[in-house]
Amino acid sequence: MTPVPASAHHADGHRFTTVSFLTDYGTSDEFVGVVKSVIRDLAPQVTVIDLTHEVPAFDVRAGSLALVRAISYVPSGVVLAVVDPGVGTDRRAIAVEVAGGAGVLIGPDNGLLAPAVAMAGGAERAVELANPEYQLVAPGATFAGRDVFAPAAAHICNGVPLDDLGPEIDPHLLMPGTVPLPREEGDSLVAEVTWVDRFGNCQLNCGPEDLPTRWGEQVRVRLPDPDTPGATVIRSARRSPHFAGIGGGVGLVLDSYGMYAVCLDRRSASAELGIGVGDQVVISDDPDGDAPPTTPVSLSRR
Amino acid sequence: MTPVPASAHHADGHRFTTVSFLTDYGTSDEFVGVVKSVIRDLAPQVTVIDLTHEVPAFDVRAGSLALVRAISYVPSGVVLAVVDPGVGTDRRAIAVEVAGGAGVLIGPDNGLLAPAVAMAGGAERAVELANPEYQLVAPGATFAGRDVFAPAAAHICNGVPLDDLGPEIDPHLLMPGTVPLPREEGDSLVAEVTWVDRFGNCQLNCGPEDLPTRWGEQVRVRLPDPDTPGATVIRSARRSPHFAGIGGGVGLVLDSYGMYAVCLDRRSASAELGIGVGDQVVISDDPDGDAPPTTPVSLSRR
Amino acid sequence: MTPVPASAHHADGHRFTTVSFLTDYGTSDEFVGVVKSVIRDLAPQVTVIDLTHEVPAFDVRAGSLALVRAISYVPSGVVLAVVDPGVGTDRRAIAVEVAGGAGVLIGPDNGLLAPAVAMAGGAERAVELANPEYQLVAPGATFAGRDVFAPAAAHICNGVPLDDLGPEIDPHLLMPGTVPLPREEGDSLVAEVTWVDRFGNCQLNCGPEDLPTRWGEQVRVRLPDPDTPGATVIRSARRSPHFAGIGGGVGLVLDSYGMYAVCLDRRSASAELGIGVGDQVVISDDPDGDAPPTTPVSLSRR
Repeated sequence: MTPVPASAHHADGHRFTTVSFLTDYGTSDEFVGVVKSVIRDLAPQVTVIDLTHEVPAFDVRAGSLALVRAISYVPSGVVLAVVDPGVGTDRRAIAVEVAGGAGVLIGPDNGLLAPAVAMAGGAERAVELANPEYQLVAPGATFAGRDVFAPAAAHICNGVPLDDLGPEIDPHLLMPGTVPLPREEGDSLVAEVTWVDRFGNCQLNCGPEDLPTRWGEQVRVRLPDPDTPGATVIRSARRSPHFAGIGGGVGLVLDSYGMYAVCLDRRSASAELGIGVGDQVVISDDPDGDAPPTTPVSLSRR
Repeated sequence: MTPVPASAHHADGHRFTTVSFLTDYGTSDEFVGVVKSVIRDLAPQVTVIDLTHEVPAFDVRAGSLALVRAISYVPSGVVLAVVDPGVGTDRRAIAVEVAGGAGVLIGPDNGLLAPAVAMAGGAERAVELANPEYQLVAPGATFAGRDVFAPAAAHICNGVPLDDLGPEIDPHLLMPGTVPLPREEGDSLVAEVTWVDRFGNCQLNCGPEDLPTRWGEQVRVRLPDPDTPGATVIRSARRSPHFAGIGGGVGLVLDSYGMYAVCLDRRSASAELGIGVGDQVVISDDPDGDAPPTTPVSLSRR
Repeated sequence: MTPVPASAHHADGHRFTTVSFLTDYGTSDEFVGVVKSVIRDLAPQVTVIDLTHEVPAFDVRAGSLALVRAISYVPSGVVLAVVDPGVGTDRRAIAVEVAGGAGVLIGPDNGLLAPAVAMAGGAERAVELANPEYQLVAPGATFAGRDVFAPAAAHICNGVPLDDLGPEIDPHLLMPGTVPLPREEGDSLVAEVTWVDRFGNCQLNCGPEDLPTRWGEQVRVRLPDPDTPGATVIRSARRSPHFAGIGGGVGLVLDSYGMYAVCLDRRSASAELGIGVGDQVVISDDPDGDAPPTTPVSLSRR
């Protein structure tokens, strides 16, 4: 999102023509379609870009990570994100302005928006979406996407000033998100799988800047042993700029976000190695180079 | 859909700029994309809003329920709905005008459209899509969505009069839909699960107006016993305006459509209680308040 | 795609307003949404039509078949297709102009585009997308959809000449696709399942022109026996223009692409008969007419 003056409205008075949309709604129900219908009805000039709606149900952290991966590519406009297990309670619905007014992020105040807001330069202004005049009246309170968030997105695109939607709140009091950081431990880097993508690639929370420059192209990764709870296995892994460069073994590929991912070439690393989100991956230098040790190492007390 | 005069065309002669689209096509094939391509080719001014394409294959009733849940939120325009196991036979393809011309519903005449048409105020005019001039020529007859329905949607958006598309038919002779109604039985209300959403919430075919006002916040629900065919179990359930208010037990949440749903907080009621669409749920008052009985009750003759 | 002069730009200087989009990205991650975001950012006049994103991971042939099924219906514009197991290696990224400039197909040069290019009349011009000025700078090379293909699609829609994007390449040197052809064997036609759709219909690589005209409406199909590896079973199948005409048995339905498909009425032929993509289906005349033989025939040596 490139900063633009907040006053830069379109000729027809509209402020934005794009809403980027992320949820855990799935697409088996009509939830996503109904939210888009509400936006279309109120702001027909808007194009909605679906980022994804397959965030695992209720998984605020996974949603926040998908959002932060996408945020740099999202066009100027509204970002509407809803992973909202606390819907209908007193958790706040918020709109957060970033990048000199180039973007407004809308969603529940539960940490979902926080990493993306930080990536976009930090919250410059925030309001609570409390004004019922900009909400739909509904017989039940379980679908804030439709009744609260979608109208807010549409009205903001139409140029309604942020503070008409509700009282300003201190951006410093927004719920923070949690992103795990890697840590050094002796000669190793203790990382964590933060995301398994469609192809089974396992993104880690570390990049090239986290690894000592003296390490070679061949490293060791210690992974949980899927067959023995508490045990780990050590695999040799080749650092590679692309999947095809891995060969038949395990690769540590520098992915398109600048992070390392544990990968296999044209196969699912997650399925074959038995690892998933939250699993610990310990990376260390491989002094042997081409001789990959695979001895299982038990961590459990017997 | 707010009624507008049927003559209210856009300045450029177009009648509509929105098609709302629901099918059982899934998204693993290119069916949905091809239908949209045909619409785009014939009516480039149109934006297509996907309601859902994951209606279970061939399930006309599930499709009709998703459509009726969405219809109040759909913008003025065409509603294109295809769940069509009889495709290629002599079942009729129809277009039905509602709401003073604000909307035209297109689909097979098999009951799919009926509940939404009723919700939108009833059919005011209907035609059979029989004019081959407004259809694509195809080597086979199995893809009416592409060859019959998509062109009809596009041409209607472009302002082609309804009766150019085929002969008028009596709206009273359209195939009705079937929506199950709850019934009182002694001091109980016999309801049915009509929809399990992505989160496992089980919507019932009853709302607050169906329950006696003297009943308290704590009720009893009798559910099928997933472990014993023919048997049922009784659970205590708390009525709550939101999921977070349920606590660790079973909740009867007033959902965003004004219906009750059997829910758990942040877990799938369908998966954990073993209930699904079509299952009977018998609701009664809970005189004990906080003491939830869970004795299994067998209904099967031994 | 109807040929139009390549010089036929829109009044505002734009060349195209539609990108048709097919990948194996799935929708569980934000990949598709990020590609659309990049296009939206660079070419806001463009509408993206999703053909499908559920091509099986890495399956170039399945992707090429979905694309060739869709290509005749796709509006004039860019077709962006990405099934790209060799991403980041020296496989070429290409843009191919077809139909007198009415369409430009963009994707990896791995055979994915070839059948659709042939169906659209053949490649008239091709360039390698090698000019970094029209690409996004990224920390890793694994997401060419975002960094190479999406910007190319947007810039071509905006009217950037093809040869600004990279050097021209000989269209005859593009990687060909592979489509299996049926073959006659004695009195039989040996066909292959090329596609199983959402409903379980199994499309074959043959149509009415491949079957002798003297054959009746009742034919025999020899299918793999799902219970005995190497063995086959013979089923009687009725040729029908629609699913409802099959009755309770197996049907050979002329599908909407002019190909035969092995089908059951309202049930999945793939699931119930145990057949899938790549399986051989041998069709022959059924001299008995209505007496369907179902004797299992073992082909394996015992």
